[in-house]
Parts: sequence; structure tokens; C-alpha cells
Amino acid sequence: MQPAPARIGDPIDAVDTPALIVDLDAFEANIAAMAAFGREAGIAIRPHAKTHRCPAVALRQVEAGAVGQCVQTVGEAEVLVAAGIGDVMVTNEIVDPSKLARLAALAGRARISLLADSPEGVQLAATAAHEAGVDLGCLVEVEVGMGRCGIAAGEPAADLAQRIADAPGLRFLGLQAYNGRAQHLPRHADRAAAIARAGEAVRETLAALARRNLVAAIVGGAGTGTYPMEAAAGLWTELQVGSYVFMDREYVAIEGPTGRPEPAFRQSLFVLATIVSRAGADRAVANAGLKSMSAEQGKPGLAGHDGAEIVGISDEHSLIRRDGDGDLPRLGERVRLVPSHCDPTVNLHDWIVATRAGRVEEIWSVAARGASR
Amino acid sequence: MQPAPARIGDPIDAVDTPALIVDLDAFEANIAAMAAFGREAGIAIRPHAKTHRCPAVALRQVEAGAVGQCVQTVGEAEVLVAAGIGDVMVTNEIVDPSKLARLAALAGRARISLLADSPEGVQLAATAAHEAGVDLGCLVEVEVGMGRCGIAAGEPAADLAQRIADAPGLRFLGLQAYNGRAQHLPRHADRAAAIARAGEAVRETLAALARRNLVAAIVGGAGTGTYPMEAAAGLWTELQVGSYVFMDREYVAIEGPTGRPEPAFRQSLFVLATIVSRAGADRAVANAGLKSMSAEQGKPGLAGHDGAEIVGISDEHSLIRRDGDGDLPRLGERVRLVPSHCDPTVNLHDWIVATRAGRVEEIWSVAARGASR
Repeated sequence: MQPAPARIGDPIDAVDTPALIVDLDAFEANIAAMAAFGREAGIAIRPHAKTHRCPAVALRQVEAGAVGQCVQTVGEAEVLVAAGIGDVMVTNEIVDPSKLARLAALAGRARISLLADSPEGVQLAATAAHEAGVDLGCLVEVEVGMGRCGIAAGEPAADLAQRIADAPGLRFLGLQAYNGRAQHLPRHADRAAAIARAGEAVRETLAALARRNLVAAIVGGAGTGTYPMEAAAGLWTELQVGSYVFMDREYVAIEGPTGRPEPAFRQSLFVLATIVSRAGADRAVANAGLKSMSAEQGKPGLAGHDGAEIVGISDEHSLIRRDGDGDLPRLGERVRLVPSHCDPTVNLHDWIVATRAGRVEEIWSVAARGASR
Repeated sequence: MQPAPARIGDPIDAVDTPALIVDLDAFEANIAAMAAFGREAGIAIRPHAKTHRCPAVALRQVEAGAVGQCVQTVGEAEVLVAAGIGDVMVTNEIVDPSKLARLAALAGRARISLLADSPEGVQLAATAAHEAGVDLGCLVEVEVGMGRCGIAAGEPAADLAQRIADAPGLRFLGLQAYNGRAQHLPRHADRAAAIARAGEAVRETLAALARRNLVAAIVGGAGTGTYPMEAAAGLWTELQVGSYVFMDREYVAIEGPTGRPEPAFRQSLFVLATIVSRAGADRAVANAGLKSMSAEQGKPGLAGHDGAEIVGISDEHSLIRRDGDGDLPRLGERVRLVPSHCDPTVNLHDWIVATRAGRVEEIWSVAARGASR
């Protein structure tokens, strides 16, 4: 693990770079806004920890009213349970017996659930729960338009739910109905149409469950790009939003209901970097690249410099060019870069430096950094 | 840091996934081939540790005859010096006084050098060396076509060399002439043209140095995509190749001198993953995604399954589709994925599992994982 890049109380300009920084005012406003949305809509918020992999963030979300956390891996679940999160849902299929044994071992200390989309998955999870002498919650993942994991809606999903209900060691909890592909569709109308189709799949599956006298206590899904749509549908019970705490260029680029970019949450996450070269008159080079920021969704943005943008990214560098007589940062200057995709960016860092009013207020461990197993 | 995903002696199918694995036969052949090239061409090999961030790999390269290692960050240099590497060149501009102080602290234990492309950079490095009472080697980075860092060739570069030669605490070592942009140009002829232009910039700068009675003991540059070209030019003295040890889809895609894909090195690096969903008839889902593989250079490949390919990647999943009646892996099967870009992929992992003949032979710590400061 790398040493922390700052000390509490440091001015931001004393933070060693590259470093992941969070603007606490924006971060806290984002958590409060999502919590308020859930209260007003009467729907549970279960934020996704794959975004932050950080117990300090998870605890603040729960303190604001979240019912627990989602994770994508058993390693993430271990870190959150160790930090005191009492309800963790693995929104993923787990089929490896050694991973299922680790998950079952957590079930003595927290409410633990996972997904299944195959009879084999149900059987493997049941075996692990039985061997550990615990109960695992289990949801059927339904294919609702994402085309990744998930069993077909309706009868096939309900048949699998029946297997879960019949399996000793498993509790049938409900349905996972997540369309990740819909989250970043740029047009609001396209996202609404995708979630409407997902709702049809949920409705069909709930009807098939009812014919078996099975009840879905939880219908989970949604993300930062579509959550008001799932809430309005009246079918989902939990919103598994992740990126809203930090935001990124990808989410800022999508269109809100009015046709303008979605302004609901503030950018709270930045990569702090230092300008290490001004050798070219039209360009500056910052010391943060692919090992500090994920770039598969495009290049990062540059905050606070009009008329200059990031035009290239390599392992340890971002190349900044000015347009015409735009404003280029000077050699040695600290700059703030805006990640294009927050989840894999956070996973590159061991620490989040939480700042307010130009100073370091807290330093958080990304304790589940790398916990993909 | 995450626990290691395997134990020595395990069969590969017992390795926990996702895990980074290296095929030792291919890896050793790659190191031997590059070492032989250097011997035959009479040019030094200084492999780039930004590719592997792993002392075990660095030590094998040095054992095979490499003169030392390149790094891109002070953190990488610290890890390599601690592991016993005696000559480390930071092929990067370092302008932060606290980083320069850390670098100078290493100079008592190893030969340490860095680049400069500005008078301010020279002054800052000289101050750090003076304060630590050590010598730092310093090279002028010359802009040779990459358009990132690097001072203009010829007189401006030679003027900066003179400043280095005159600065107490710094030794003028030579020139850095690296065109990273040329490495992945798909056509061999385009790469050759780019390196020919870089050669002109080197020649012009060497002439300007000669007029000042300055000698470039080192002219560094080259990468896995172009190294025979720099070697043939007779101007460069060191090849700073990195990716050749592991290879990736990006390098395999470039054209060799005959117009066919470059076959010089073998793919030794893979991400081992498990199939966690076969719910869709035409698809399989593996449990390795953006947090296990960099994807800004495209999706990973799938080894060993004809007629199936990776068509999507998300945080913890790769989506595999078959073409027609192609061969899809079964639920629970281990699959090997081929990263599109090796350097940022390795940086996502704490461990490299080194395998031979289907078994785990060694487990290497990626000790400089995350060491971007």
C-alpha cells in the first residue's frame, strides 16, 4: 500500500501528486440529495460500494439513511462487514466454492445476500450456506435489457426463484433488475424507454412469482443515470446508485429531462496533479495518467482552465493543449482533473484526500482497492 | 494489499480469480530474445519498469544483461533500489522539491538519473542534489516527435545541457530521445519514418553539443514497437523497451517489416478469470473487468476459444459472445484474457502468478503497484 499523500490540515497545494481528492461540500451535498430523494419517493437507497471501495464513504451513506450497501465482489463485502456495515448485497453471480465459503463466513456478522441466474449457482450457494450453518439471502437476476448476466424474465426467472425458496440455507429475497446499459444513454428519452422495458420484465416476473405464491421483498436496480425512472415505476424497492457521490464526465454528459446536461449532483472527485513540463509553447503536461485515472470512457477533463483541454493520456502523463490564446497552467502548478469514469479511477488509489475550503480535513483509506476477488 | 491468489505448486485451475498470470516459458523467451538482440546489435538494454512495477522481473532483466532499469516515477525508483537494482533512470521530468529530495536520498545507494526539459527543472534538481550532498545524473529530454515533454532539438537542447553541466550536484549524462507516439503506429513504414525524423533531431542536437564540447554518454529512447530502428540508426546507446516482456493486443496488432503482425515476442501475460454466467444462450460472462484490465486501448482478447470474442467490459465483468456456432466457455470454467495494454493492467494487481506447465511456480509482488508519486 502506498503512503498517504497528505496530512490532515495541509493546504491542498501541499498534497503530493497525483492524488485523489474529494471536495467535501459537494460530496456531502450529493449524499444528502440522494437520501432526500429516497425519503420523498418512499424508496430505499442501497448505494453501490463498487464506486468508492471505501468504508468511510459507506458509513456516511448509511448514516444518511441508506439501508446497506451493494458490492460486486466478495472481497468488497469482507471490507465493508469488517467496517461495520450490517447489510451487504453482492449484486453479482458468485459460483466459485472458495468465494462462496468466504461469503458464508460473513453471514454470521451481517445480513448477506447475492444473486443467481442459474440452477448451478443456486446449488453452489446453498451448499456453501449449509456447510457454514448460515442463511444467505438470494435474489434472481433477471435480464431486463442489459444483455450480460440475468435469466429470462417471467417463467424462467420464477422457476429459479422457486429453486431458491426450496433450497435449505437460502432465503429468496426477490429480484435484481438492473439495466447498466441504460445508465449512460445520452438522451433522457432513450433512458426512459429502456427503463420502461425493464419495468415490463419486472412486472411479468412478479406475476409469475405470484402464481407460485412467492413474494419479492426486494426488487433492486437503478443507477445514477436512471434512478428517478425506477422510483417512479412503482416496481423497484431499492435504488442501487453509486456514482452520484463522486460524479464523473460520463454522467455529467447525459441529458436531463429538460434536454440539458443532468445537473442533479456536483462533481466532488478530482485527481490532483502537478504540471511537470511546459517545454512546448502550446502545451502543458500533468503528472497523472492511466495509472491515476481510468480512460476507457474518454479523457479526463481539466477544471479551472478555460480554453485548455486534455488531448492525450499515457501511463503517467496527461497532455494539455490550449485553444488559441487559452489559459495554460504554469510549470509546477497544481491542477484538478475530472475523471471520465469514477469507479475504476478510485480503484487506482489507496487513499482519498477529503478537502474543504482549501485544506485537508480527512484522509480515507480505499480499503477495498484491488478487492476484485 | 490483497492476499495472493494462489500458492506455489497449485494447478492453474486452483488460482483464485481474477488473477494476473504469466507464462514463464514465454516470459523467459522474451527476456532472452531482447538480451540477445542487444548483444548482437552492440547496444545497451535498459528495460522500462513502468511495464511491470515488479522487482522480480527487474532482477531477471538485469541478470540477463540489462544495464539497469527505467522508471517513470520516484516511487518506482524507491522500490527498485530497495530491491537491489543499482542503476535507475527516471525517464521523466520531476519538479516537485519533495519528490526530488526522495530521489536524491536514493543516490547514495544506486546510480540515479532523471530528465529535464526546462531551466527550472535543472535548478530544482541541482538544489535537491546539493542539499542531499549527492550527484544526480541528468539528461536533456529532446522533443523528437512525440509532442509531450521535451525541449526543442539543437541549440535549445544544447543550451539546457550546458546548464546541467554547469550545475553543481548534477552530471550531464546525455539525451533522452523517445517517441512514444511512434510505438503503436500500425504500419511498419510509418514507424520507420517517425524514428528517422527522431534521428534527425538527435543528430542536430549532438552537433550542437559538440560545438560546446559536451558529450552525450547516453542517448536513450525506443520501445517495443520501434527498437530495431533506433538500434540501426547508430545514434542511440540504450533501448528503453518495456512491453516486450509481457506483450499485449496493442503490440501484437502492429505490422512487422514484412507487413504481417509483429511476431517477435510471445504473449506471456494473461488475466485468469472465471465464467460466472451462461444465462444467455449466445453469451458467457467472465468475472474480470475494468478493475482487472485496462481498456482504453480496446477490449481484451479471449485465448483458446475460437469463434468467441469479448464484446463488452464493465467494472467486474467481460461479456463474451459467440459468432454463429463458435465455442463458448462453460459456467465455472477458467478462461485466459489477453490485455489490450499491459502497463496499466499490471498496475491493477498486487501479485503476478508465474506459471509453467499448468502449475504455479512463483508468485511475484507487484511491489510498485500504485507507486505513481
